[in-house]
Amino acid sequence: MNRRGLLTGGAAAVGGALVGAATAVAASSDEPAPVVRMKDVDYGHAIEPFHGRRQSGVDTRPQAFASFVGFTLKPGTDRAALGRMLRLLTDDAARLTQGRPALGDTEAELALLPARLTVTFGFGPGLYEAAGLAARRPASAVDLPAFAIDRLQARWSGGDLLLQICADDATTVAHAQRMLIKDARPFAAVRWVQRGFRRGRGVESDGATHRNLMGQLDGTVNPVVGSPSYDPAVWVRDGPVWLKDSTTLVLRRIRMEIETWDKLSRTDKELAVGRKLDTGAPLTGEREHDEPDFTAVDSVGLPVMPNFAHVTRAHVSDERLRILRRPYSYDGEPDAAGVPDSGLIFAAFQADIAQQYVPIQKRLAEQDLMNQWTTPIGSAVFAIPPGCAEGGWVGEQVLS
Amino acid sequence: MNRRGLLTGGAAAVGGALVGAATAVAASSDEPAPVVRMKDVDYGHAIEPFHGRRQSGVDTRPQAFASFVGFTLKPGTDRAALGRMLRLLTDDAARLTQGRPALGDTEAELALLPARLTVTFGFGPGLYEAAGLAARRPASAVDLPAFAIDRLQARWSGGDLLLQICADDATTVAHAQRMLIKDARPFAAVRWVQRGFRRGRGVESDGATHRNLMGQLDGTVNPVVGSPSYDPAVWVRDGPVWLKDSTTLVLRRIRMEIETWDKLSRTDKELAVGRKLDTGAPLTGEREHDEPDFTAVDSVGLPVMPNFAHVTRAHVSDERLRILRRPYSYDGEPDAAGVPDSGLIFAAFQADIAQQYVPIQKRLAEQDLMNQWTTPIGSAVFAIPPGCAEGGWVGEQVLS
Repeated sequence: MNRRGLLTGGAAAVGGALVGAATAVAASSDEPAPVVRMKDVDYGHAIEPFHGRRQSGVDTRPQAFASFVGFTLKPGTDRAALGRMLRLLTDDAARLTQGRPALGDTEAELALLPARLTVTFGFGPGLYEAAGLAARRPASAVDLPAFAIDRLQARWSGGDLLLQICADDATTVAHAQRMLIKDARPFAAVRWVQRGFRRGRGVESDGATHRNLMGQLDGTVNPVVGSPSYDPAVWVRDGPVWLKDSTTLVLRRIRMEIETWDKLSRTDKELAVGRKLDTGAPLTGEREHDEPDFTAVDSVGLPVMPNFAHVTRAHVSDERLRILRRPYSYDGEPDAAGVPDSGLIFAAFQADIAQQYVPIQKRLAEQDLMNQWTTPIGSAVFAIPPGCAEGGWVGEQVLS
Repeated sequence: MNRRGLLTGGAAAVGGALVGAATAVAASSDEPAPVVRMKDVDYGHAIEPFHGRRQSGVDTRPQAFASFVGFTLKPGTDRAALGRMLRLLTDDAARLTQGRPALGDTEAELALLPARLTVTFGFGPGLYEAAGLAARRPASAVDLPAFAIDRLQARWSGGDLLLQICADDATTVAHAQRMLIKDARPFAAVRWVQRGFRRGRGVESDGATHRNLMGQLDGTVNPVVGSPSYDPAVWVRDGPVWLKDSTTLVLRRIRMEIETWDKLSRTDKELAVGRKLDTGAPLTGEREHDEPDFTAVDSVGLPVMPNFAHVTRAHVSDERLRILRRPYSYDGEPDAAGVPDSGLIFAAFQADIAQQYVPIQKRLAEQDLMNQWTTPIGSAVFAIPPGCAEGGWVGEQVLS
């Protein structure tokens, strides 16, 4: 383990340096590339913190892979049993995220490259019911209202417990998933597993906006960690111990109707989105992060940003009411005719679902032109309880 | 595209440097890490050649992701139609692998980061039949003999045409797969798609041996590109134009019975494999690439490398008869009880299946202890025809 010890510190330092460096050199550089040594790109040993007042996997820059595992609690998994389960799973997560095998890890070698592994615990409404603690559930963490555009399948919906497992390596995610499911087994059945991906680490600049399988940049107007509006938008900042430093997650499986989408011209696609496909700039701007100008009109007096465009419908002026999108692509098996099973695992974190997510989704469901090419086929909501200190366990504030 | 032009050359150079550097610094280094600039780790723009006398994706250092797409030819896809299809698919592959959109690419932006994309074409026995050219099929490219251990499912077996699509990025693989399937559609139906993964680029040293989901290093004794025995083992070096510079692929889907495997002690696992789990060293050695000593005996006179061990059964003394394994892990959805659907997409290239793969597999099927924890559930064989020059198309030597 010598090499690991040496490299862990270095990898973290380099990770930080890369974020800054990416901006500095992205525009142009024709100096010869220096020789790079392995430790400079040791993504395998890079580590995200596990312990803290807030759970990791929310503020964390999105890793390349995610597995969302939804569980149904077994009959008899009551408040005391939930405590036993969550102590076990917390111990697994605390070890695995730091590159250490879980207790009784049967494939210990697969645990040694955490690659920024995070494990984030979510509690569905049914968990609070099972614990007899419905009063401690965040008020907005309930099933979403039905939207006319929904075609929800039970196969991808609901769940009492969520584990969001993310890392920059697919083998790491597979191993962590297996260990966690094994330890959850006496208490809960696997309800669904949703695997997703983004661009691989080092494939594009750290912090680049996700480009989805329809070819759009997706998540440009996200709250920015460290900005004044970030914490109010994403985290519950006060209240009883089971709410302070919690957040909520809306998880929607959105099928892309790519076959019909691709019958559109490029111009029509851009009008539907409200952004240019290449740069992601709003139709009134030049660069991805330019503010859209919803008052601009073209030569015949029509708005340059159409009223029906996705960006127009989704726009939220008050930055403290924005949602933090952390989406992943999914790509299942095409059918015999070659029609793809592709889409988006839409994951959004916000302090309050009713105040933030629901109003946006209502506006989108009413008039977003993109509804023609996207279909929500799964839906689940989870409270993301506060984090825990070393020796503690995730959920202790809720269940103790 | 300025940035891309600048970076492509740099990325290739750095790729080469990394291989050497990995060995040099792996042992120890406590110098401070230099600041790394994005272009040093620009895996996105790294390119593998497409044109050449041999197809890429065989000698190519395995990329992080693979999609194996098996097709069934439609009735009426005869020799002329095959030529039309392969011209189209060759054009797509030639563009996409070099980071250029396919003709009529509906998500052009997704094509700009090839991440070492390769597209390798394989011809199943049925393709030669459909073309009326059975005599041009490599003699050994026929269905494998039945092995008693097989539990083959039609769902993962056979196929007239294969596209092996590999890249260091999952989005790149998904996009290339979609474009290629779209253009194959008039001629062929999708029979199966098998997605696999290895450790991500930069997660461990380039060239590290694959560690599978049972925790073993898998592929240690592979022919080494550039060694005298490599070409005789992997490539057909003479004969008619449709055979010279061709090879063959055996593709087996091997389910891992991980639940029972994990009931074994670590020592028993190592005896079954014949290697140590941590280093991959043979039980008679210290390091991964040490030669196993099949004559060594322990204090009571038993062989240190058991006769039933996987390594003992798979051993091939004549290096020119070894097979080139290029395996990927798969990890499907676990069932409600949490039992994983995990395994190996075993992909082996060899000049001649009958001379090389079949004898090994016969020995393994007879007595390999690992048979207790692995089950072949899919099987397919393909000829990998020669490559083509710019302006040519894959399959022209076979079908012209």
